[in-house]
Amino acid sequence: MNLKEIAARKAAEFVEDGMIVGLGTGSTAYYFVEALGERMKKEGLNIVGVTTSHATAKQAEALGIPLKSINEVASVDLTVDGADEVDRNGQGIKGGGGALLYEKVVATYSKTYVWIIDESKEKEYLGAFPLPIEVVPYGSERLFQLFVEKGMEPTWRKTEDGKLFVTDGGHFIIDCHMDKIQDPITLANELDHLTGVVEHGLFINMVNAIVVGTERDGAVVVQNTNKHK
Amino acid sequence: MNLKEIAARKAAEFVEDGMIVGLGTGSTAYYFVEALGERMKKEGLNIVGVTTSHATAKQAEALGIPLKSINEVASVDLTVDGADEVDRNGQGIKGGGGALLYEKVVATYSKTYVWIIDESKEKEYLGAFPLPIEVVPYGSERLFQLFVEKGMEPTWRKTEDGKLFVTDGGHFIIDCHMDKIQDPITLANELDHLTGVVEHGLFINMVNAIVVGTERDGAVVVQNTNKHK
Repeated sequence: MNLKEIAARKAAEFVEDGMIVGLGTGSTAYYFVEALGERMKKEGLNIVGVTTSHATAKQAEALGIPLKSINEVASVDLTVDGADEVDRNGQGIKGGGGALLYEKVVATYSKTYVWIIDESKEKEYLGAFPLPIEVVPYGSERLFQLFVEKGMEPTWRKTEDGKLFVTDGGHFIIDCHMDKIQDPITLANELDHLTGVVEHGLFINMVNAIVVGTERDGAVVVQNTNKHK
Repeated sequence: MNLKEIAARKAAEFVEDGMIVGLGTGSTAYYFVEALGERMKKEGLNIVGVTTSHATAKQAEALGIPLKSINEVASVDLTVDGADEVDRNGQGIKGGGGALLYEKVVATYSKTYVWIIDESKEKEYLGAFPLPIEVVPYGSERLFQLFVEKGMEPTWRKTEDGKLFVTDGGHFIIDCHMDKIQDPITLANELDHLTGVVEHGLFINMVNAIVVGTERDGAVVVQNTNKHK
C-alpha cells in the first residue's frame, strides 16, 4: 500500500453508518472513495455521498454509492479530501486537480472536515505548490496582469491540448508560483476581496484533522485546533 | 426629457475623443449609450466602448460604437453606469438589471467611474432596494438558507416565466430584502469572504462622481471623496 492509500484507508474508518459523507477529488481522495465502496459491500455500510467534481461523481456511481448534491442536504457529517500542501498550523493549498471551488463549498457545510495526505505534503511554508486562483473569465486578463505586478508569478492553467482549463463551474484557473507564502491568512483575505476572483486554493482554519500516511508510523492522525467556529 | 436622460446626457459630455469608455447596463445607462452614439454621428467623436452585458453590447453595436472586451484593454478611461440606490457617503447598490459582476469588473479597472441616477435613487440608508448577491449554483441552496438565518430575507431572482435567472457569467442571483443596511462596509466585507458568493451589489468607495437628474436644478454633479486609491 502506498502512503496515500494508507492515509485514505485510515480516514475511511471514521465513516459511520447513516452518515452524509463529502467525497473529495484527486489521487488520494480516490483511494478513500474506493475504501468506502469496499466497506459498503463487506459491511453493508449505508451512506449518502456528496461529491466535489464530475470525476468523483463518476467513480462513486460506479461503486454504487448513492449521491446527493450539496443543495439537497442541510449539512454534511464528514468530508474527507486530499490536499496539495499543509503547513504546521493546519493551513493548506488545494486545487491541483481544479476542483477547489466545489471542494471548498462542501467543506464549508461539513461538520467534520478531514484531509488525507502522504507525508511529502507536509511543509514548513506553503507556496512551493502553485496556488490556484479560480477566476471569472470576463476580466481575467486584468487579474492576471495584477498578479504579475504583485510578483505572484501567474500562469494560466491549461489542458493537455493547450487550451485554457475550464472548471466544473465554468471559470478559469490562474496558478501563482509564489514559492514561499509568508502569511497565508493575509493573502487569503486579499484574494477574497478581489472582484473577479471566485475562489482560491488557500484553505484557512477549515480542517478538523489531518491523516498523514508516513513510512515509519503508518497513518498518523493530527488534530487541528485552529478550525473556525 | 426625463430625469434619467438629463443625468445621462450630462455624463456624455465628460467623454473625450480617443477615450476607452465603459458602458453600463440598465435604463439610465441606456440613455448614456444613446447620447454617445449621437455625439459620434454629429461630432465625429472617436471612442472604444467596453460593455458590461450582452444587452448593452447589442445596443452599442447597433449605434456603430466599436467595442473591446475588458480583457483586451489595459484600463478604461471613464465608465458611466446607473445605480439602484446611492447613500450620502457615495456607497451604492447595483444589480437590479443582473449585470453587477461585469459592471463591477469594468468599474475596478476604470480610471474614472461615474454613476448617473435620477434623484429618487438618493437614499439616507441603502437596503429598500433588494441587495443582489451573485452566487455559484453549486451550493447556492445552502447560501440561501444562511441568508434566511441571518434575517436577510432572501428571494431567488427569477425570469418572467418563473425559471431561475442566470447571469451572463452563468451564476444565480439571490436578492436580499434587508430594508435598511446599517453598515454597508461591514456587510460587503462579510459577503466577500463567503464561499460560493461570486460578487454582490454593494459598490463601496468605487465611484468618483455621481450625476443626479433633478426636477429643480437639472443635472447636478456630486464629487465623491471616498473613492479607494
